[in-house]
Amino acid sequence: MSISSRKKWVPALAGTLALTLAGTALAQGSKEAEGAIKYRQSLYTVIYNNFGPMGAMASGKAPFDAAVFQRNAARVAFLSSIAPDVFPEVSKTGNTKAKPEIWANKAEFDKLMKDFGDKANSLALASKSGTLDGSKAAFGAAAGACKACHDKFKAE
Amino acid sequence: MSISSRKKWVPALAGTLALTLAGTALAQGSKEAEGAIKYRQSLYTVIYNNFGPMGAMASGKAPFDAAVFQRNAARVAFLSSIAPDVFPEVSKTGNTKAKPEIWANKAEFDKLMKDFGDKANSLALASKSGTLDGSKAAFGAAAGACKACHDKFKAE
Repeated sequence: MSISSRKKWVPALAGTLALTLAGTALAQGSKEAEGAIKYRQSLYTVIYNNFGPMGAMASGKAPFDAAVFQRNAARVAFLSSIAPDVFPEVSKTGNTKAKPEIWANKAEFDKLMKDFGDKANSLALASKSGTLDGSKAAFGAAAGACKACHDKFKAE
Repeated sequence: MSISSRKKWVPALAGTLALTLAGTALAQGSKEAEGAIKYRQSLYTVIYNNFGPMGAMASGKAPFDAAVFQRNAARVAFLSSIAPDVFPEVSKTGNTKAKPEIWANKAEFDKLMKDFGDKANSLALASKSGTLDGSKAAFGAAAGACKACHDKFKAE
């Protein structure tokens, strides 16, 4: 092999190696992102499945069941404490409705997230009244906290 | 229209109506089943994401972090209390690894499910030791409870 042909070959190999390494890093990043997004969507699905029935009761679409309402409110309060953990920066890219603004405006996002936790805990407390009248305002406030964050940070 | 042709037409219409109603019921059933399966898989994804890091610590693959271990153990204990709710009979049919044996052998399933809850609560208690040595046996027992149920009632 002549020196001139080796000169071409070495950068080409280096380029291939660099691309391979970048590709591997990207694949690992994607896999990590995919897992983190799946965790996030799963947590919100569990929240939704417990929040929904309370909404049906609050709006009169389902009969009020004090035990189920109280149980679901306690669950949403607990689950709200996990929510801040499911937005690692790696989960910014991928098949997600979470807007990149979450990570660009982290302080604002954290404030809305804290408000969700606060309102969910207030709802759990209010639900102990065992009455719909005693729970309705707190339910509305919790639903409002969900909406405030979704309006700002969740794509349609 | 002659009487004879009407005689053919009426049962045909009744048949079509019956099929349409059955189809609607099936579609609604599928939608309900789909939602219930999604809820179940989501709950287990959240459990898995909290159980996994404890497993990595217990096996020495990740450094022991007492605070994370204790937090995750408390989460799994709480989530185990939701688990019995995510196996409604409607969720038997659909894109799920949950075996139909769950609903055929409900008493046995419920026993294994209760054992998971018990072991998860014991793990949460043990994790308060703040040490890996104080948590390892309880972690193994909880992992064993997961496996016992999966071996019997979860498809590969």
